[in-house]
Amino acid sequence: METAGSKIRYLMTPGPVEISPGTLKALSLPVIHHYSPEFIELFEKTTEKVKKVFQTKKDLIIMQGEAVVGLEASVANILDAGDKILVLDNGPYGAWFGIYVENHGGVVVRLKEDYNKAIDPDKVRAALKENKEIKALTVVHMDTPVGIINPIKEICKIAKEFGVLTIVDSVAALGGIDIRPDDWDIDICICGSQKCLSCPPALAPISISEEAWKVMDEKKTPLKLSYLSMTDYRETWIKNRKFPFTPFVSEIYALNASTTEILEEGLPNVFARHKKVAEAIRDAVEAIGLELWPSSQKIASDTVTAIKVPNGIDDEKLRRIMAEKYGVLIAGDVAGLEGKIFRIGHMGYSARMDNALVTIAALERTLQEMKFPVEIGSGVEEILKYF
Amino acid sequence: METAGSKIRYLMTPGPVEISPGTLKALSLPVIHHYSPEFIELFEKTTEKVKKVFQTKKDLIIMQGEAVVGLEASVANILDAGDKILVLDNGPYGAWFGIYVENHGGVVVRLKEDYNKAIDPDKVRAALKENKEIKALTVVHMDTPVGIINPIKEICKIAKEFGVLTIVDSVAALGGIDIRPDDWDIDICICGSQKCLSCPPALAPISISEEAWKVMDEKKTPLKLSYLSMTDYRETWIKNRKFPFTPFVSEIYALNASTTEILEEGLPNVFARHKKVAEAIRDAVEAIGLELWPSSQKIASDTVTAIKVPNGIDDEKLRRIMAEKYGVLIAGDVAGLEGKIFRIGHMGYSARMDNALVTIAALERTLQEMKFPVEIGSGVEEILKYF
Repeated sequence: METAGSKIRYLMTPGPVEISPGTLKALSLPVIHHYSPEFIELFEKTTEKVKKVFQTKKDLIIMQGEAVVGLEASVANILDAGDKILVLDNGPYGAWFGIYVENHGGVVVRLKEDYNKAIDPDKVRAALKENKEIKALTVVHMDTPVGIINPIKEICKIAKEFGVLTIVDSVAALGGIDIRPDDWDIDICICGSQKCLSCPPALAPISISEEAWKVMDEKKTPLKLSYLSMTDYRETWIKNRKFPFTPFVSEIYALNASTTEILEEGLPNVFARHKKVAEAIRDAVEAIGLELWPSSQKIASDTVTAIKVPNGIDDEKLRRIMAEKYGVLIAGDVAGLEGKIFRIGHMGYSARMDNALVTIAALERTLQEMKFPVEIGSGVEEILKYF
Repeated sequence: METAGSKIRYLMTPGPVEISPGTLKALSLPVIHHYSPEFIELFEKTTEKVKKVFQTKKDLIIMQGEAVVGLEASVANILDAGDKILVLDNGPYGAWFGIYVENHGGVVVRLKEDYNKAIDPDKVRAALKENKEIKALTVVHMDTPVGIINPIKEICKIAKEFGVLTIVDSVAALGGIDIRPDDWDIDICICGSQKCLSCPPALAPISISEEAWKVMDEKKTPLKLSYLSMTDYRETWIKNRKFPFTPFVSEIYALNASTTEILEEGLPNVFARHKKVAEAIRDAVEAIGLELWPSSQKIASDTVTAIKVPNGIDDEKLRRIMAEKYGVLIAGDVAGLEGKIFRIGHMGYSARMDNALVTIAALERTLQEMKFPVEIGSGVEEILKYF
């Protein structure tokens, strides 16, 4: 196979992540018809498992697309022209919501924060007090390019005091870090298959509250019969066990397998594993003499570690050496932050201590090769403390 | 695995179809990062292979979604409010285009034909003469629910005489039946992965002409930064070897494997195989004493055979017996035509003489069980003539 030639043995990017042997095997099962009783049953069971991973009893739809389809849809399904949306922007994906809002006829009220800080709930309260008639707010749970966790629980509670709908992008956190759509008043909570759910990119599971459905129904021209429609999934699957179009059979096999593995491990154990790997990596990174991007360890994500590129180091070269010499793929940053940050992903099946050890060992030696003053073994030592 | 319990061994529906062992194996390859050099190279090679299957040198994008995303996008990317679109409607999918046109602000000029007949090119010419300012026409190459082939070449040539953009849904034909976007003046030609390309549902490869790009660019508010945007794929992949969002890595593996197999067999051989299986099935169906849905064999598709449900036969029961007793899954029809048609799909990897034989033998015995007067062996005899 043409894909077998990859030098990469450790996929430490913030998605796609490594996929377990069991999930890979599920992908290669024969495709069955989507309206066969077996597939309907599988889709039901898979949805129930995903709900458990979401820790929700709300409705859950599995949009058949990359996670961004859910981000765009969450805005497109609730907006009437001129509606005001509070966009919480402390990272590139936070900012991105504003583009969707404007493209779909809404008006952006932006609350901007430094990209190395978390959103301050008090500022959200102030913004909602100041701006009347905010219909919804958008916030990213963990903005992948900067590796920062936002206080979703506090933010959503405040939103509800003002009767504001809450849209949370937890694409790169849910399944690795605790999030509770029901207890935390999240109306639309969006995830993606290729992050902590350890599946290939292709699916966007989304929990939707009764209130969110109501807002969608009350939209002047509800979004129906469109690839972006959320209500299409309710009218077909939720109400009638039909599909709006042919679902991604093989990807559903994978999602079923991966959520089975997550639930067998147990959500508290999964979260603890992510936390342990993340803390080990953060400690190791600082021991090596590098600086974390987030303004404090408290807001650093347990699914991705964003690190400042040291002065004089070409981060693209650093990543290339790690990939080619050690088979470890880490990530650079997105447009606007290039050259400032590099990132180690530790999500889902990739969030393992063995992977952490290999990554840090490779990072130490690569920095040494690039003449960065590093004490070989200083990072590895920190990782081993967590073994 | 929960999916291993399926009784279905012969997937004779008009999609999803059976998937070859080689393509299934490709699905289970480890996921690599979409920006690794290996994946970029694979995506390039896959695109080139798909272009060969499309018989086109035009630009080709692979939209990451079920085929309908391409149908909706083809309309959404070219329409300004009030633009008139000629919708050729001789089947449910033909009609469906009208919904997309209206949802995206266009005005539908509908040319309706009986659902058992092909579109008459002369009527297209008349409609274009009568209705000035038609921006584009939409037509389905093969409307799956009715199994009829439309004369795409003739229709598109006429459209070009009037300077009208041509949008062709060849989702259920391309890769099984000859179609030539370049020679036949097709501006936007849409396919889906789960039909003749023998992949899981998930991808929509689409060829796009220079003229179509021009119309998209000249739209008053070009559709950009949206899941439905076609120009996003041009700005990212075609111009810069980037992706608008994470591509479906595993599904691209599958598409690479399946198009490799199609090209190794050779397109003329693939088309001949589809034709042979289809003719055998049509002859067998008539020998059994059933009636084809299309008004003549000449317009019957080589990828799906639509058959009238005989008086007094419950087609749902017929399909259930075939599935449960013989492991052969065939299809009923879509909304509006229920109980009137049942269908045998013979697309891609499912289009084989052995599958045809099993299907007809099962159909004979099921009809007998349901007290339909059938001479056992009459259909099988016809199939064997083609072996």
